[in-house]
Amino acid sequence: MSFRPNGIVTLTTDFGLSDAYVAAMKGVILTLAPEARIVDVTHLVPPQQVQVGALILAAAAPWFPAGTVHLAVVDPGVGTRRRPVALFANGQAFVGPDNGLLTLAAGPRAPGRLLGDRTLTLPHLSSTFHGRDLFAPVAAMLAGGLAPERLGPPARGLKPLDLPRPRKVRGGWEGQVVAVDGFGNAITNLDEALLARAFGKRPVTVTAEGRPIRGISRTYGDHAPGTLVAVIGSAGFLEIAVVNGSAEKGFGLKAGAKVRVTAQAFKT
Amino acid sequence: MSFRPNGIVTLTTDFGLSDAYVAAMKGVILTLAPEARIVDVTHLVPPQQVQVGALILAAAAPWFPAGTVHLAVVDPGVGTRRRPVALFANGQAFVGPDNGLLTLAAGPRAPGRLLGDRTLTLPHLSSTFHGRDLFAPVAAMLAGGLAPERLGPPARGLKPLDLPRPRKVRGGWEGQVVAVDGFGNAITNLDEALLARAFGKRPVTVTAEGRPIRGISRTYGDHAPGTLVAVIGSAGFLEIAVVNGSAEKGFGLKAGAKVRVTAQAFKT
Amino acid sequence: MSFRPNGIVTLTTDFGLSDAYVAAMKGVILTLAPEARIVDVTHLVPPQQVQVGALILAAAAPWFPAGTVHLAVVDPGVGTRRRPVALFANGQAFVGPDNGLLTLAAGPRAPGRLLGDRTLTLPHLSSTFHGRDLFAPVAAMLAGGLAPERLGPPARGLKPLDLPRPRKVRGGWEGQVVAVDGFGNAITNLDEALLARAFGKRPVTVTAEGRPIRGISRTYGDHAPGTLVAVIGSAGFLEIAVVNGSAEKGFGLKAGAKVRVTAQAFKT
Repeated sequence: MSFRPNGIVTLTTDFGLSDAYVAAMKGVILTLAPEARIVDVTHLVPPQQVQVGALILAAAAPWFPAGTVHLAVVDPGVGTRRRPVALFANGQAFVGPDNGLLTLAAGPRAPGRLLGDRTLTLPHLSSTFHGRDLFAPVAAMLAGGLAPERLGPPARGLKPLDLPRPRKVRGGWEGQVVAVDGFGNAITNLDEALLARAFGKRPVTVTAEGRPIRGISRTYGDHAPGTLVAVIGSAGFLEIAVVNGSAEKGFGLKAGAKVRVTAQAFKT
Repeated sequence: MSFRPNGIVTLTTDFGLSDAYVAAMKGVILTLAPEARIVDVTHLVPPQQVQVGALILAAAAPWFPAGTVHLAVVDPGVGTRRRPVALFANGQAFVGPDNGLLTLAAGPRAPGRLLGDRTLTLPHLSSTFHGRDLFAPVAAMLAGGLAPERLGPPARGLKPLDLPRPRKVRGGWEGQVVAVDGFGNAITNLDEALLARAFGKRPVTVTAEGRPIRGISRTYGDHAPGTLVAVIGSAGFLEIAVVNGSAEKGFGLKAGAKVRVTAQAFKT
Repeated sequence: MSFRPNGIVTLTTDFGLSDAYVAAMKGVILTLAPEARIVDVTHLVPPQQVQVGALILAAAAPWFPAGTVHLAVVDPGVGTRRRPVALFANGQAFVGPDNGLLTLAAGPRAPGRLLGDRTLTLPHLSSTFHGRDLFAPVAAMLAGGLAPERLGPPARGLKPLDLPRPRKVRGGWEGQVVAVDGFGNAITNLDEALLARAFGKRPVTVTAEGRPIRGISRTYGDHAPGTLVAVIGSAGFLEIAVVNGSAEKGFGLKAGAKVRVTAQAFKT
């Protein structure tokens, strides 16, 4: 749990860009940590879709330097049972609800702290808006140098992200589309590590809703526009994309669509 | 009118996020105040809706530290009669048109200055784009330490925000929805101070378009999803919301809908 | 090619605001240039519309101080033939693909460097995402003080922006709408310099899709709401706008619509 802040605080929420919610959080952060540098990851996570928020945070976090605090709020259960936590992994901190949002980025076994000490929060704590009244103060204080141990007792038994698990099929693995990004790229639950273990460097065929794709490309641009390709996306998951187009619009790939990876019978 | 800048400049506009308008303002600010730290409140105020912009600014401003400059432009009358002003309240500065946009946040009697001195503006003043050519330079100079007195003569007779007034009804007050935020929460013109004066700690019933809501909740999350609740929002106004849903979509609450608060006959 | 960085890095892309793409670029920049101050121009350039991106960048860049690095990515050919470049003009740097995106802002003859040295890029270079793996590192290093000469060999024969050329007509010039901004203002390819050469200070008539507009206004606000006006926009191009309205919605002006400027027969 060694964490040495660099002053950067990133924000990932489903609060949208039309209201004062995000600005209120930033004001709180800058009040408590005047030197903080705030970076928006996105505030356009579809409302309450923890899974999409977790994928975006996991895709963004690795590109930030050690010492960054990632504050994330996609929180259907605000004000109710889920626990507020701060997790520590890869020299970074992750602050938000313990509902799986943070665990894809931080890892399901990251050491963490429960945010139990009410003295850390603003005097007028609203139980409606934990982003502003609980998570923002904690993120600011971590960015300002507060020792993680001061936040509260150790957090045990983190809730993992509720992501469907790929299943073993004859000759390979079957997963599914779990999110579609703004370009219409369909992100699956088949991760790079699983594919490397299963296939090593053997050539594979990816089958998306019955359509075969030969191999996993390094780039969209190697193929003709309109081609369906399979690539490893920035969060480390297999993505189905269309060169200069949308896999969602062009091929109807949306959340739940089945994607299968199998070894090719013959090297091509 | 004591104002000691902290270098933060916030922006609230209806310029949208698709064009160069906002960036041009930021470039001007960073040219004149290289150390400024710019924070977007929102640029998605619905076009020319001063009332919505004022509510957002009033909800965001209190969360920023003293010394912050809030620059706001929602300005149907750009280039015409309304006066450009800088107001000072709560240790913060508010720069923009005198059309009510600033007065909800700064208070209707905040001391201010007319931005009359053309020497403060950029050499190529465009009368089309006061955001960039007048308000941004003034905000930058305030953030950089210019004394408010240098801006121009005192501003007297500020235009108040054109917000409908709640009216006294039998047993309570009737207001109306004045804006709906991105979550579908319906924000009324019934403010916390009015309700405290009228009801103290007595239990109340809120009636939104004929539907009764028992009491004002502290949190959305205490209730079952789909429940209609009344809460005090971050701008200090009574809001009607649906737990994990939209009061606008679910119950048809939009601008103009009547909302009444009355004392409950019996304590529950 | 004298360039002395001020630490500001602006971003102009078609990546949208819903995904982790922009944040990943920011993380890379802050990793390599911890003191960089990042400013978003826009990430809502319509997908792959280089022309629109170029106009926005050209409208924004002049307002930033010398020493700013402008990173822009609108890049239909990512991973394929177009060359990655850094251009230098007006004391600023422009980093992105050599597809015309940068040349409107930097000028078609700006000195530049090819980004050929792979040692500059991140170890795990993805050929899919040059924004993150090539352009962001280069922008960060320029912001951090790397000498332009270190980037690669001189870039010659830059690709100009593929903008239709105005043509000489009887009594004046005919151009066309090349983009419509978020306010519904129709931006033409008729630039201020051309009009000054052609007409000097003589009064002109602007004809947009057959509708005559008398003169080029200094401001929208001088006219009654709903009036069609011609103004010089912030990128230096003639724009057709509707006071408090949309030229696109109100008058059907969209990309391709003809706009003619002719000398008025008599001074009015």
